Amino acid sequence: MPVISDTELQRRRAEIIEGARRCFAEYGYEGATVRRLEQATGKSRGAIFHHFGDKEHLFLAIARADAARQADIVAESGLIEVMRDILRDPKSHDWLATRLEITTMLRTDPSFRARWLHHQEVLDSAVRERLEQNAERDRLRTDVSIGVLHTFLETVMDGFITRLASGHDLEGMEQVLDIAEDAIRKH
Amino acid sequence: MPVISDTELQRRRAEIIEGARRCFAEYGYEGATVRRLEQATGKSRGAIFHHFGDKEHLFLAIARADAARQADIVAESGLIEVMRDILRDPKSHDWLATRLEITTMLRTDPSFRARWLHHQEVLDSAVRERLEQNAERDRLRTDVSIGVLHTFLETVMDGFITRLASGHDLEGMEQVLDIAEDAIRKH
Repeated sequence: MPVISDTELQRRRAEIIEGARRCFAEYGYEGATVRRLEQATGKSRGAIFHHFGDKEHLFLAIARADAARQADIVAESGLIEVMRDILRDPKSHDWLATRLEITTMLRTDPSFRARWLHHQEVLDSAVRERLEQNAERDRLRTDVSIGVLHTFLETVMDGFITRLASGHDLEGMEQVLDIAEDAIRKH
Repeated sequence: MPVISDTELQRRRAEIIEGARRCFAEYGYEGATVRRLEQATGKSRGAIFHHFGDKEHLFLAIARADAARQADIVAESGLIEVMRDILRDPKSHDWLATRLEITTMLRTDPSFRARWLHHQEVLDSAVRERLEQNAERDRLRTDVSIGVLHTFLETVMDGFITRLASGHDLEGMEQVLDIAEDAIRKH
């Protein structure tokens, strides 16, 4: 058996992630059956689960890839910019609708919840760090804690994703994000 | 067959709605089978569907009952107060989690979407009216349209419900609502 390089391994994983993301976007978490995942990725179930263990781990790997990409944007420009980025090309973020599908699992399955939070940690830390930096630069309102500002931003993000996922008209959303950004600033 | 008074009819419908709400809260929209709806309401499927037609109409009737109650709060004190009201007793609003379950239906089933929006119209108008009144009293910021402020409030509400439904810690949420309320005000 030929030795597979790390680069090749990463490439194969990335291919599966891309295909699976489209599959979850189209059919939802429940609807993304193994057969559909095979079709969307062009790989056999053996290959897919060799790399990712099971469907849940595959799903979490995609979520982590997103979180890592978003964390980069946050470090540069903040969480509101992540939403502006999505708003520029909402179609390519169709898969975010699965976030709502897993809400019930988050509430009722503590072990799934723990794994999910673990995978979101990179984004979470990036937001916290960014807020702390802005606080040091005296850019944030000081009448509430940084934790509250963090929760405010996450609440807006959750609402933003929900509206996106339910097919709402996104008119005015740019300005909504401006209001949210303005709301955490020092005046 | 005895004639049933309007009051009696309303009472029976209200009983079914209360039982069904608990059932949807516990099992979700999909999981609330006819058998479970019978157990939760103490009525036969014949009686339930005599009053509500089918499961979807029953679900929409509960959503409309909620929307009407929330519209009353909005008329008095605004949409943020609806969220404060939920925050005082989150457990009794467990059924809101079904809102996320139906997101995919909202996106992919235009006729369900139309019926859903129709049932939310009472709440929607109440929020718009309240915002218009506050604008006349010069209480709102004027750099964006009332439509944008409306979308901002709805986005916060969607995020709030998502966090509630996914079992997030609600610490700091009171202050998050203060920030949101403050953000639409004139300063």
